[in-house]
Amino acid sequence: MRFDLYFRKNPFGGEFTVFAGLEECIKFIANFKFTEDEISFLQSVMPMCEDAFFDYLRGIDCSDVEVYSIPEGSVVFPKVPLMRVEGPVAVVQLLETPFVNLINYASLVTTNAARHRHVAGKSKVLMEFGLRRAQGPDGAISASKYCFMGGFDATSNVLAGHLFGIPLRGTHSHAYVSSYMSLDEIPDRTLRNKDGSKVCMDFVSLVKDWLCKIQAADSLRNVFGDTNQSELAAFASYALAFPSSFLALVDTYDVMRSGIPNFCAVALALHDLGYKASGIRLDSGDLAYLSIETRKVFHAIEKEFNIPGFGKMIITASNDLNEETIDALNKQGHEVDAFGIGTYLVTCYSQAALGCVFKLVEINSRPRIKLSEDVAKVSIPCKKRCFRLYGKEGYPLVDIMIRESEPSPKAGERILCRHPFLESKRAYVVPQHVEELLHCYWPGSSDKPRAELPSLVKIRSRCMQQLEKLRPDHIRRLNPTPYKVSVSAKLYEFIHYLWLNEAPVGELQ
Amino acid sequence: MRFDLYFRKNPFGGEFTVFAGLEECIKFIANFKFTEDEISFLQSVMPMCEDAFFDYLRGIDCSDVEVYSIPEGSVVFPKVPLMRVEGPVAVVQLLETPFVNLINYASLVTTNAARHRHVAGKSKVLMEFGLRRAQGPDGAISASKYCFMGGFDATSNVLAGHLFGIPLRGTHSHAYVSSYMSLDEIPDRTLRNKDGSKVCMDFVSLVKDWLCKIQAADSLRNVFGDTNQSELAAFASYALAFPSSFLALVDTYDVMRSGIPNFCAVALALHDLGYKASGIRLDSGDLAYLSIETRKVFHAIEKEFNIPGFGKMIITASNDLNEETIDALNKQGHEVDAFGIGTYLVTCYSQAALGCVFKLVEINSRPRIKLSEDVAKVSIPCKKRCFRLYGKEGYPLVDIMIRESEPSPKAGERILCRHPFLESKRAYVVPQHVEELLHCYWPGSSDKPRAELPSLVKIRSRCMQQLEKLRPDHIRRLNPTPYKVSVSAKLYEFIHYLWLNEAPVGELQ
Repeated sequence: MRFDLYFRKNPFGGEFTVFAGLEECIKFIANFKFTEDEISFLQSVMPMCEDAFFDYLRGIDCSDVEVYSIPEGSVVFPKVPLMRVEGPVAVVQLLETPFVNLINYASLVTTNAARHRHVAGKSKVLMEFGLRRAQGPDGAISASKYCFMGGFDATSNVLAGHLFGIPLRGTHSHAYVSSYMSLDEIPDRTLRNKDGSKVCMDFVSLVKDWLCKIQAADSLRNVFGDTNQSELAAFASYALAFPSSFLALVDTYDVMRSGIPNFCAVALALHDLGYKASGIRLDSGDLAYLSIETRKVFHAIEKEFNIPGFGKMIITASNDLNEETIDALNKQGHEVDAFGIGTYLVTCYSQAALGCVFKLVEINSRPRIKLSEDVAKVSIPCKKRCFRLYGKEGYPLVDIMIRESEPSPKAGERILCRHPFLESKRAYVVPQHVEELLHCYWPGSSDKPRAELPSLVKIRSRCMQQLEKLRPDHIRRLNPTPYKVSVSAKLYEFIHYLWLNEAPVGELQ
Repeated sequence: MRFDLYFRKNPFGGEFTVFAGLEECIKFIANFKFTEDEISFLQSVMPMCEDAFFDYLRGIDCSDVEVYSIPEGSVVFPKVPLMRVEGPVAVVQLLETPFVNLINYASLVTTNAARHRHVAGKSKVLMEFGLRRAQGPDGAISASKYCFMGGFDATSNVLAGHLFGIPLRGTHSHAYVSSYMSLDEIPDRTLRNKDGSKVCMDFVSLVKDWLCKIQAADSLRNVFGDTNQSELAAFASYALAFPSSFLALVDTYDVMRSGIPNFCAVALALHDLGYKASGIRLDSGDLAYLSIETRKVFHAIEKEFNIPGFGKMIITASNDLNEETIDALNKQGHEVDAFGIGTYLVTCYSQAALGCVFKLVEINSRPRIKLSEDVAKVSIPCKKRCFRLYGKEGYPLVDIMIRESEPSPKAGERILCRHPFLESKRAYVVPQHVEELLHCYWPGSSDKPRAELPSLVKIRSRCMQQLEKLRPDHIRRLNPTPYKVSVSAKLYEFIHYLWLNEAPVGELQ
């Protein structure tokens, strides 16, 4: 009994998908076993079943199941099996729903992250900030893991950092700022120089001095008015606690009139003591305008007070960001270095589900085809081998599925690639390089060694490399070119033979 | 330190929300404690922090935190606090993200389920079929729980049935049907009569006889041609295993030409032995048309073979259903008794996130207000009491927030209800009944008894009752009327006093 797991359409209006969730599936089958508690529950809800059935359930595990899969983090396309699962029908049917669950959202959110990375560009820092809006606690954990896989740099989800080793990044909250009333609330104002040489006894006074200097500076005179003192207190207090990683959220009151001058005063005071502030976060307003104006101020301060590097202070932006808003920022021009992205990323707001399916393709060595009035829903029958053919420039040209009994495509040899359903769509391809897509991940044996499950960091690298290898027009946001997925001439004929002649196998509806 | 948890806008273009997730929040704080493993991890990622900080973390729990909340399953509206959380700032800040996470998706999906129930009507059976498309395994478990809370009858998620006692419902898969090739594959064809009186030695022959009778029947002659034999084998085999709960998925090949006659033949054979078949599931095609045609066949068979009740066989529909498709089915007319709803329900596809926020409203007995250029984002400061005022017809009229120091509104007494921000929007209301909304859920004491956390079934009943009590125009799908949320005259003045005069507290941006 063989099942293929695949999807029919790339998400988000795009022409690529990143495959994720494999490791979770393999963990699931490695531990698959009914507990006595579960058996008792099933007995209670299925009183019509014989004891022998429950004894059977007690005995099953996945030792007779074989799983072939494309490596996790690969770029994948519709119709090509992501996984082929073989084994006893009853056991494999029990795996259908967990596998589809574990792969659907994982692949969807990894793809979403990869799309955000693509639009933001390689040089930007991308942080996943989705925990509070994700679909449940585990939805959030999965999101953090797979966003990292898809190209994000860090997460604000501390548990995900703990579980998966993902770098952690975050900033303080608005509530932290508004929890302060005034500078009088800071009890300990001492701060030791970074090099340990001496102690500044009143960091707050130093901050106030700098605020006056900024406000008096010719180059900045017209920018700033009075700043909010509770915000200043919050910033100073934060810097006293974390002088080496001072990053301030500057939009609690007014970014340009209060947040930025307050931040600069504290950053300059830190600089006096040998520390380098990290930067700011903007969480509302016109991020293009505010980031550009903020950058101007940073440059003006660098020049005015001769502080090399101050102009390069990190500007982080957040506030309901998504692919479209980042694309719009790029078009307007902006000075944002890092994006914190939450809701739209982790819930895959623009398309909240991927439609992976798990279809029977062969039973007792007989091929099975699922027909449908909708050609896109016709399944590709029987056990197949799948290859990616690469062209001269190193780009993948086409994926091809062949019958198990056929010889593999070879580099330098011409092969006919046919659309699985449309007769007129076909082309000869001479690949420069051929990559077999499906590998044995469970259980493995001496002649079929089990493929390795790499670390998350390695999977992430694979994903980045695969996306780089793809022809850019497949990835672009606007009208991307569909990547071609084909079958061999033999498989084409076989599909259409079954379709026409094997009435008991399937009938045209 | 007091924080309010609330949301700003009802989801799905509607004018109501169902509050859910409270029990999970209370469980979270009851068990809130850092483990040594977690502390070690935090030390590794925060090397700049003193040991005393980690000792502090080791010592904290939620014994000093108080939680006031609207009961779970209540209908709620924007701006009114769903929860008020009081306690030490550092501890309460640690609760912000988990609470928002636990309430956002729970309330969103419960509301989505309630909207599906509303459009389907009370008489229909609603089954949640979302496990494979949900956002991760736990997203699926949460979805099953909260869809039941919002008015669904059952789930196909067996683990959710086990964990929460939700009734389980499901049908076999397409793969089950296509795993059969022919009737020869059924080894044991015996079936004992329901009353145990005798044993039918060849149930398959009985099914075949019935299929012939159906095909020969005048009233049905023009409907059926040859049916698919592998489908017939699958149905007969299923009926032999589960004669008391035979429900067949009839669209693997062709609903009207194969699935329905095959189902009827098996159902009639079961009837001969004293069993009553359950019905069918349609998973593709024109559900309005197919359900109506199927119903006609069922009625014709009832009449032709004098089988009382056959016409009332359950017709279940599935296949990417959502509020809109059910509404469209209602408008066209259909004969569906039960809906199986998955992807759109559990992922909240039409709006994948609710925007709950957690805002500081008071610190050290001083009120805090968060201002914004966007009036909808201005928070309502200070500790408040919240009431729902009911009118003569029993409908809720308006929710009102008052200052802690004010007397409660009383039934029969006139009270001025003001829009929190718009001066001209105000009205006197004489409530017939007044309900206080926030109750103490943690930790509780002799003078503030802890409110009970009811069972899931009770919360579900509360949700159903609350929705029934609501004026229908607030619930309708098209252009629903916004429910009014107000503040007392005193609170109105206080908000605007702070807004204008408390510059250090907040500044207009």
